[in-house]
This record gives sequence, structure tokens and C-alpha cells, in this order.
Amino acid sequence: MSVGRIVKTEWGVCIDNFKASGVREGKYGLALIVNDSICKTAGVFTTNRIKSASVMLDKKRIDNGFQAIVINSGNANSCVKDGLRDAEEICKMTAKRLNINERNVGIASTGIIGKRLNMELIGILIDKACKLLSNSSNGSKNAARAIMTTDTKMKELSIEYNGIKIGGIAKGAGMIAPDLATMLCFLTTNANLSRYDLQNALEIAVDESFNMLVIDNDMSTNDTVLLMSNGKKKCTKDDFQYALNYITKEFARMIASDGEGATKFMEVEVKGAKNRDDARNGAKAIVSSSLVKSAIHGENPNWGRIAAALGSKVDYEFENIDIIFETCGKNKRTAVVIEGGEVNDLKGAREVLKNDNFRIIVDLHSGEERAVAFGCDLSPEYIHINAEYS
Amino acid sequence: MSVGRIVKTEWGVCIDNFKASGVREGKYGLALIVNDSICKTAGVFTTNRIKSASVMLDKKRIDNGFQAIVINSGNANSCVKDGLRDAEEICKMTAKRLNINERNVGIASTGIIGKRLNMELIGILIDKACKLLSNSSNGSKNAARAIMTTDTKMKELSIEYNGIKIGGIAKGAGMIAPDLATMLCFLTTNANLSRYDLQNALEIAVDESFNMLVIDNDMSTNDTVLLMSNGKKKCTKDDFQYALNYITKEFARMIASDGEGATKFMEVEVKGAKNRDDARNGAKAIVSSSLVKSAIHGENPNWGRIAAALGSKVDYEFENIDIIFETCGKNKRTAVVIEGGEVNDLKGAREVLKNDNFRIIVDLHSGEERAVAFGCDLSPEYIHINAEYS
Repeated sequence: MSVGRIVKTEWGVCIDNFKASGVREGKYGLALIVNDSICKTAGVFTTNRIKSASVMLDKKRIDNGFQAIVINSGNANSCVKDGLRDAEEICKMTAKRLNINERNVGIASTGIIGKRLNMELIGILIDKACKLLSNSSNGSKNAARAIMTTDTKMKELSIEYNGIKIGGIAKGAGMIAPDLATMLCFLTTNANLSRYDLQNALEIAVDESFNMLVIDNDMSTNDTVLLMSNGKKKCTKDDFQYALNYITKEFARMIASDGEGATKFMEVEVKGAKNRDDARNGAKAIVSSSLVKSAIHGENPNWGRIAAALGSKVDYEFENIDIIFETCGKNKRTAVVIEGGEVNDLKGAREVLKNDNFRIIVDLHSGEERAVAFGCDLSPEYIHINAEYS
Repeated sequence: MSVGRIVKTEWGVCIDNFKASGVREGKYGLALIVNDSICKTAGVFTTNRIKSASVMLDKKRIDNGFQAIVINSGNANSCVKDGLRDAEEICKMTAKRLNINERNVGIASTGIIGKRLNMELIGILIDKACKLLSNSSNGSKNAARAIMTTDTKMKELSIEYNGIKIGGIAKGAGMIAPDLATMLCFLTTNANLSRYDLQNALEIAVDESFNMLVIDNDMSTNDTVLLMSNGKKKCTKDDFQYALNYITKEFARMIASDGEGATKFMEVEVKGAKNRDDARNGAKAIVSSSLVKSAIHGENPNWGRIAAALGSKVDYEFENIDIIFETCGKNKRTAVVIEGGEVNDLKGAREVLKNDNFRIIVDLHSGEERAVAFGCDLSPEYIHINAEYS
């Protein structure tokens, strides 16, 4: 890997010649991301057996490469008769308005399931969004805002690394969308790599980021990550992977921090594992345990629940393990709660848990593998949001 | 199967010559179940890789048959050095007091993890409990009360079927025990079957009852189901299986209804499945979805979340399925929400959800297999209980 530093930039998805826009009418939003020419495009989609019409259409068309992506929020276009026809119509309207080929238009949706789209409104929003397209950081910010549902914060980030630019916008997963828990992320880059290498890099990055993000264990029919490249910058695969891993993990953190009702963000690292599966499954088991999440909400360093959640997926000896709580960021504070199976004083851990961001580290001392999962606490507010939504 | 009716009886675990007792000192309880002679004993235990000392000891000794079971609540005796020695000591004290062989004493524990037992207190409680042993329904009720932790209701039931008696006491699972989510159930019977047949019948019954019970997806290190038989009644395996399935399902329902913070009990039936795994995994996916559970709490017939949860585990076509909400018990009310993928009016379903007990039925129309899972809603109270516990 070449030496270099990741630098945050201001462009959002509007790197180089990418344009974006976003409009909103009440709880319905629409965003566009557009390029002058057809981009090599990679995509990762929900593994739910029930997929929205948008996901089905993207999967058919992604090999063509996308020149534009149209995203609507407020309606998932899932479990609806004629959903696929409506999705095709949206792409067609967008293509016509932009004077491009509809086979190069991608689509994504988030919102309520089982209701037919209001196609008239969608048409109006497409017209508006096409007029507002802009190659500025404002264009990107408007797009990021238009795809929000119950997100409380806009999610946008762009970076540069050894001349490789990657920009992105995202909306939250899990507890975020009350009706469908949808996670969306749209990335643009200048990396000149083959379609195959882009797809490969995206799958690796998603596996370490969004696939390690657990909010409420529910799986959307609409999850979509798309990556479009204009191919303007020659680069190595390693450099691109490094930058892509960085930005997707940052988005996973943003999404976890903004989980529905979440008051605390946590990263769980399982290290010293015999194999990759143990590390990944262990970290995900801890981050997704309702008992651990409730304890964290109460700032309660309940290591017993951590040990039990880990044991539900990973074979380990309690006498061998360490459990550590640690603050994130500068002036790191560390509290070793369990050391070789022995319980230490919990005072330090209680202090760490008063922070809004922290890490739980479990060292199994039985191998070299490690994995990090991203999550949040479980608060009564989560239930209020999801019980009252209709 | 012979014709007959299941009749509820009054004995609890104290059928025939079984005695029981229970005592409590603040949050620490202790219960005994004792027979005049050694009973053939079957057991099913947690599959968590981290097991409490009590579970480890039972697994070593169960083939000997138990004459007594000693159960302590308030402390799980899990993840503790010397836990196994303490468990052995408890069995030894109990055996000595009862003048029986310690190799025929079983043990179970529930409560906080990682704290050493107060052995002095345990000794005092064993002494008291031995003095109070009684072959009456009061003895059984006292035992049922002594094993409660955050349970709000005592769980006890006994039945007779074609001369087969089965009695039981239980404590809650999942959201029940804040520190460990432990589920315990102790059953006594007069069925004269081999140890092998008893074990086989128990495994089948548990698979349809406690293994289909999902409260919060957390898995205890202490889950234990024990079945002791005095062998006084000759019977067929089929008759015994029928009665055992009945009583274990009833306990699963009681436990689900009394989940921590639960305000509503739900059964989810998936039928018309291609195979058994689809039926079971589908029913469990729906009953354990935080989004479904939150919706139920809000009396919101959100079929989209049901469809999405099902799709996370089962391959199906939305156009083929029906989703039905139905009240339990007499004067059943039924609301067909989805019929062949088409949405009906939701008014009837909203009425059904106003009840505290109801069923959700999903018909996949693709085969003959069916499974039922037991669960409850997710309420803010669950988080309060589990955040504040320490």
C-alpha cells in the first residue's frame, strides 16, 4: 500500500463531474445523482428473499452501468402489485427528463411497505429535482436530506486518498426506518478500475462495515449500496480498497449513532479469535443482544451479558478472556473489566459508559483473527417510535 | 393414540409420592423436589457454550437418575471460579440432610452471573427447605414461588391423561431474568418408560415448546428442563408424548405471557410450508422481530414487517401468501389482512390486536408443514427493567 493520508473533502457525492439534487414534499423525498456519461457501477443489495421492486430492477440493469440514480423516500415500493412497472416508469421519466437511456438509470426506495407509489407526485418531484441538479456540495447535501426518513442527522462524507476521490450519502439502517429498517448508501468515485474490481472492492468493504452494523436484527427488503465510477483516476486496487473501507466504516458508524432512539454508539471488537467466523459472529452477537443494549442504555457494565451473548455463538473458555471498555477518540480511557476470567473493579467501566461513544473489546486469546461490529443502545424511545408508527 | 381427555389437576409437582418445598430470604430463593426413591431422569440444557456450574454438574450426573433436585434463585453460579465446587457442595449438603446419595441430587440455578454464591445462606435455606418438604399442592406452590426472579406470576401446572400424571413448575425465559434470561422447568411424572424413551419424549416436547419461545433472542447459560419419573404407571409412548407436549406448550405460553415488560402474548403460526425448517424458522423470525414486537405493542397490524421478517429466513412469493390475525380462546375473531398477496381492510386486525392474547397465522400455500412460535410484545418497560438492573 502506498503511503498517504486520508483527507476529508467538501464535495459529498459531487466529486469531479457528478451532479446531485434533492427535493421534498412532506414526508416524500426524491434525490438524483447524475454523471455526464455512463459510469461503471457496482452494487450490493439486501439478502432478504422479499425484495423491493427497486432492488429487483437494479439487479437486472446494473451491468449496463448507471449514468443516473433516482432515489425516493417515504414509500418502499415493496410487496406491491405493479411495483416493478412503477419502478420502470420512474426510471423512464428520469431518463427522458435527463435525455439519457433508461437502461442506465438505477433506482432505490425507502419507506412504507405495501402501499402503491403516488406516481403523479413522483413525476412532479423528478421534474423539480432535474431542474435543481448541481455540481456543488449543496447539491450533495440536498440529496442527502431528501433520502432521510426518521434519520435525525444528514449522512454525507467525502474523502481523498492518493488522488482517489470517494464521495457518499447514506440513510440509516435498522431502527432508522420504522417501517422497513432500510439502509441506503450511494457512493461516487474517480477510481479507474474495472467493473469487476469495483464490485469486488465494494463487497469486501460492505462486509467489514454495513454487514457488521446491527441495530435491531431486522432485515429490510430495500437495503442498497451503489458505487458509480467516472474512471478519471488511475489507481491501485489496494489504495482504492483502503479508502473505500474507510468511508464505508465511517458511514456504518454514522448510521449506528443515529439508530432510532439511540443515545449511545458502541463498537464491539472481538480479537484473538481462532478464525474469522468466531470473530465476526462473536462481535455481532454482543452488539445485537437486547440485554447488552439495554444495559448499555443504563450505563451498566454488565459483563455477564457480554459473556453470555458471546457464548451463544462462540466456543470459548471464560478463564482465558479479557473484557475491556474503552472511550473513543483522543484521551482514551480504558477499563479492564475481566482479565483472564477474573473480575476487576467496575468503577472505571461505569465512567467509560457515561460517554456517548465507546468500544467494548473482548480478547479471546486463542488466535489472530479480529472483527469489529457497530451498534447502539436500546432505549424506550425505539419502542415509542416503532409502536406508534403506522 | 388412545382416546381420552387432558384434565388439569391440583398437585403441581407433588404428584403421587413427590414432595416439594420452597423458601426465600430477600432476593435469594431455594426450592426442593424430592422422591422416596431414585427416579429415571431426563434433561435438556442450554446450548450456550458458556454453561453454569449447575448445568455442568447435572450433565455429569443425570444418568444416575435424580432423587432430589435443589434449585437456587438470585445467583446463576456462572462464570465463577470454584462454581463447580460450590455446586457439588450444595448437592452434598442436600443429600446429607435428606439422607440420600449425593450422586442422585440434581441442581439448577438462576440469577446474577459472575458472583460467587453465599454458601452460608444456601446452607441455611437448604436446612429450612428440607424441614418444610410436603406432599401437598402447597409444597409445589412454595417451590414455584421460590424459583421466581423477575417473574410477576408463579408458573405451576399439573395434568392427568389416561392415568398418566405430569406436574411441573417453571420460571420465565428471555426478558424474565434481567441478568441471564434463564428459563427453568421441572417436571414430575408417573409414566413408566425407559430412561431413553423419557429423554426422547422430552427432547421432542422441548423442540415444539421452549425451543419455539422467543422473548429477546438472548440465550442463558443456565436454561434447564428436568423430568423425573417414579415409574408407577404403565403407558404408551404416544400417550405420554401427547400429555408432555401439552404441558410444555402451556408452560411456554405462561412464560411468554410473563416476559419482562410484556403486555401482550402472541402465537405465530406458519403453515403451508415446503418443509419443517421453513415453518419453524419463519415462525421464529416473525415472533422475534423487534419491529413486529414494537408494532404489536402499539396494536398496529403492520403486515409489512411480518412479510419482511419472514423473508429474512424463508424463500417465498408474496403473491401466494395469506396473513391472518385471530383472537385466542372462545368466540374467536378472525381478520384476514393479506389474501393471496392482496391487502384487505385493516380494521378487523386492529380490533384483534386490542386483545392481550392473539395469533398471527401466515399461510405460505406451498406445502404441508406447520410450526407455532410463542412470544410477546416489546415494551419500554423491558428496557427500564434491563437498563436499571445491576
